[in-house]
Amino acid sequence: MNVKIIGRMLSFIIAIEAVFMLPAMALNFADGETRSAFAFIVVIAGMLLLAGLTYLLCKGGSSAFYASEGFACVGLGWTLMSVFGCLPFVISGEIPNFVDAFFETVSGFTTTGASILPNVEVISRGMLYWRGFTHWLGGMGMLVFLLAVIPMADKTSGYTMHILRAESPGPSVDKLAPRMRKTARLLYGMYFFLSVANYVCLRFARMPAFDALCIMFASAGTGGFGVRADSLASYTPAAQIVTIIFPLLFGANFSIYYMLIIRKFRAVLRNEELRLYLAIFVLATAAIALNIRGYFATFGEVLRHAAFQVSTIMTTTGFSTTDSNLWPPFSKAILLCLMITGACAGSTGGGIKCARLLLYFKSLLRNVRQLLHPNRVEMVRVNGQVIPETVLKNTNAYLVAYMIISVASVLIISVDGFSVESNLSAVLACFNNIGPGFDAFGVTSNYAALSVLSKLVLSFDMLCGRLEIFPILALLTRSAWSRKV
Amino acid sequence: MNVKIIGRMLSFIIAIEAVFMLPAMALNFADGETRSAFAFIVVIAGMLLLAGLTYLLCKGGSSAFYASEGFACVGLGWTLMSVFGCLPFVISGEIPNFVDAFFETVSGFTTTGASILPNVEVISRGMLYWRGFTHWLGGMGMLVFLLAVIPMADKTSGYTMHILRAESPGPSVDKLAPRMRKTARLLYGMYFFLSVANYVCLRFARMPAFDALCIMFASAGTGGFGVRADSLASYTPAAQIVTIIFPLLFGANFSIYYMLIIRKFRAVLRNEELRLYLAIFVLATAAIALNIRGYFATFGEVLRHAAFQVSTIMTTTGFSTTDSNLWPPFSKAILLCLMITGACAGSTGGGIKCARLLLYFKSLLRNVRQLLHPNRVEMVRVNGQVIPETVLKNTNAYLVAYMIISVASVLIISVDGFSVESNLSAVLACFNNIGPGFDAFGVTSNYAALSVLSKLVLSFDMLCGRLEIFPILALLTRSAWSRKV
Repeated sequence: MNVKIIGRMLSFIIAIEAVFMLPAMALNFADGETRSAFAFIVVIAGMLLLAGLTYLLCKGGSSAFYASEGFACVGLGWTLMSVFGCLPFVISGEIPNFVDAFFETVSGFTTTGASILPNVEVISRGMLYWRGFTHWLGGMGMLVFLLAVIPMADKTSGYTMHILRAESPGPSVDKLAPRMRKTARLLYGMYFFLSVANYVCLRFARMPAFDALCIMFASAGTGGFGVRADSLASYTPAAQIVTIIFPLLFGANFSIYYMLIIRKFRAVLRNEELRLYLAIFVLATAAIALNIRGYFATFGEVLRHAAFQVSTIMTTTGFSTTDSNLWPPFSKAILLCLMITGACAGSTGGGIKCARLLLYFKSLLRNVRQLLHPNRVEMVRVNGQVIPETVLKNTNAYLVAYMIISVASVLIISVDGFSVESNLSAVLACFNNIGPGFDAFGVTSNYAALSVLSKLVLSFDMLCGRLEIFPILALLTRSAWSRKV
Repeated sequence: MNVKIIGRMLSFIIAIEAVFMLPAMALNFADGETRSAFAFIVVIAGMLLLAGLTYLLCKGGSSAFYASEGFACVGLGWTLMSVFGCLPFVISGEIPNFVDAFFETVSGFTTTGASILPNVEVISRGMLYWRGFTHWLGGMGMLVFLLAVIPMADKTSGYTMHILRAESPGPSVDKLAPRMRKTARLLYGMYFFLSVANYVCLRFARMPAFDALCIMFASAGTGGFGVRADSLASYTPAAQIVTIIFPLLFGANFSIYYMLIIRKFRAVLRNEELRLYLAIFVLATAAIALNIRGYFATFGEVLRHAAFQVSTIMTTTGFSTTDSNLWPPFSKAILLCLMITGACAGSTGGGIKCARLLLYFKSLLRNVRQLLHPNRVEMVRVNGQVIPETVLKNTNAYLVAYMIISVASVLIISVDGFSVESNLSAVLACFNNIGPGFDAFGVTSNYAALSVLSKLVLSFDMLCGRLEIFPILALLTRSAWSRKV
């Protein structure tokens, strides 16, 4: 393991995070929330100092950068980001308990949106801005941002590739451009453009400016932190419809948008992941609308609430317009399934991802055929391209790790004594980066009642979910820290 | 697909099943239950006639027998066995509804033990004997029995291997003897011996003779059908302890017993699956005993109930001595996990099986190491032996199929409107061949309240669970029925 290069990367991460806190600080000053503003000043100063010292300490040394360095940067980077990111909450006293603040910040960066706040409306605007911005940054990823802006990125070979691979969601990374740095810039460019469009649409739907900014952050990152106690229930129907569409857009694979830009329209129409993603959205909305048809006055309303809940859960955003905890078990079962399914690979969404579902289905079918005809050789193809066996192996290992972590988490959380439905939905909602679950952790409730251990387990789950397990798992193995390559 | 040879196999299966009904008929005659006895006579006569006709129709033809023929024999054989096996219940009027009787019989053959009977104590002894005997036969398998007794078995090459592979549980088949037919005989020999031992022990524990016979059938097959409404609660503590130990013995891999017979004691002690199996039993019992320590008067009682519930669930038997539905969520979560874990490969138990868990863990660790060091070549070993990559592939495909079937089943059953906990536990309890679930389908309740569709889905799950998915899945693919090899 090349410790020095990891140290340098971490110093960049801390410095950039500190810079990103400046607008929140300014907002607090403007609002006269001096205590919170000073909390930001203290944290920003400390972080910049620490980043500078770390950089000086880790100067020079080899530029060797392999997969283990990539995993370590991402795994450690995200953990540090969350530890530092929660300090303003603690120091200002707005979330005095460290574990609670850490949970909230991990939930922010991992774009989960699970909260321990009993009442979000008493939090200062500066803190709400920061909380929302963690979603935006976490959505596309801090290290991808680093790749896009720090010029050192292309000097060492493999550097960028290993980082992008470790931080971007999905079974494999689509190279949009031959150089990874350009890919990172393209991704952030499209992300920024879509975000602005989202903000403008929300403003047109008569949402107040600050609310629109925070809801845009949360939609873009598919996070789910709102600024009102009832999430999106009290905004206009138009604003709700905007928040059906944009999370769906952010949950699609960004390479789709790149294909649109370079005018490969036929490839977009034939994209199997996109088709599956939209098919799930339509079918789930129809099934739920049918199931809850008696719950609202008009069919239009039924459809809006159903589509909203499906979009917000399958893209792993986790907003709400109504208390879905009161819906019938069939609708709840569909929503629980959508939590696991998740959005597309290469998007800001979480979950297992449609791309992996495709691989699971196709390799299962191949397997059954091979059991019947052992001598036949067959490849798994997606969008006409052969998928390498290593990708299939990793995808299978992902499912195994996913199952083990889910089951172990549910077991640990059960000690707190909540219902089976509460525990299962809490783990699925956190691990897949959705946010609210059902029963004791439904949309009208929050995660404050859990024990410290459970909060830490769910924080671990959120990080594992966002980083797709392996960077975190790699940090925990001896093999990553051994000197052998 | 060689239809004629499959037809011949099916005719044997039906004929043998008819013969096995004779003791039940005799018992009904002895008890003066003439209506039920006549039901058996009608069914037996019809089955023997049908079997004879089928055999004559399918005489001659090629003796080609490949994997698809093996899957078809097992998949169709078990479905037919269940259809014919439920007819005595329907015709006698003891379970007048066909779907209910089918559910009950599938539950018997697959050694699940899920029941639709509100009161088992009104059923005639002949029917109870037959219901119990389906467990015993299903435990080791009808086709393995056929291999052991029908002399034609070794004439065609591959024949026995493909059948044993399709019917025996676990990721791969242990050849105990060089010839598969001898393996089948050894398996049934050990099974018979252990069953007799179980019966004798139950009698020593002062259980009535008929009860001991039925409880032995259910323990041996790890089924779970009892003859009293309170399962095992009202028998002596000694009988309960016998029923902690014997299901554990039947849930272990039978190749362990063969190794004991041929005095390979060291190999038994070093067997990784056996170690994992016993470790899970001890740890789960300890955790539950600690969790329910306030629920019973003495620590001995706490330990007995905890060990009983752990043994009966992890071996997928599903008896009960107390209402575990009232236990705290942590204990319930452990039991739900044990449902999935299941017993050992090559046993009469269900679930994912400890052997597969070992493969999942080991291949996951290898995968993480390979992600970190892509150039290292590493094999997965169990008990010091390299596991072929095809076995790993099939094991992974198994997990995918397992997940898809579980999720789809929960979705369909949710339509009936029971709680999330009820639906999840019902599917896990049926798919893993345990029997009772939690909440609406707990040990004091039954499955009668479900809709016809849900009962059929759960019957499908039970068959998929017992036959480990692929034989059933293969029947549903076009590829199995194509003429190409």
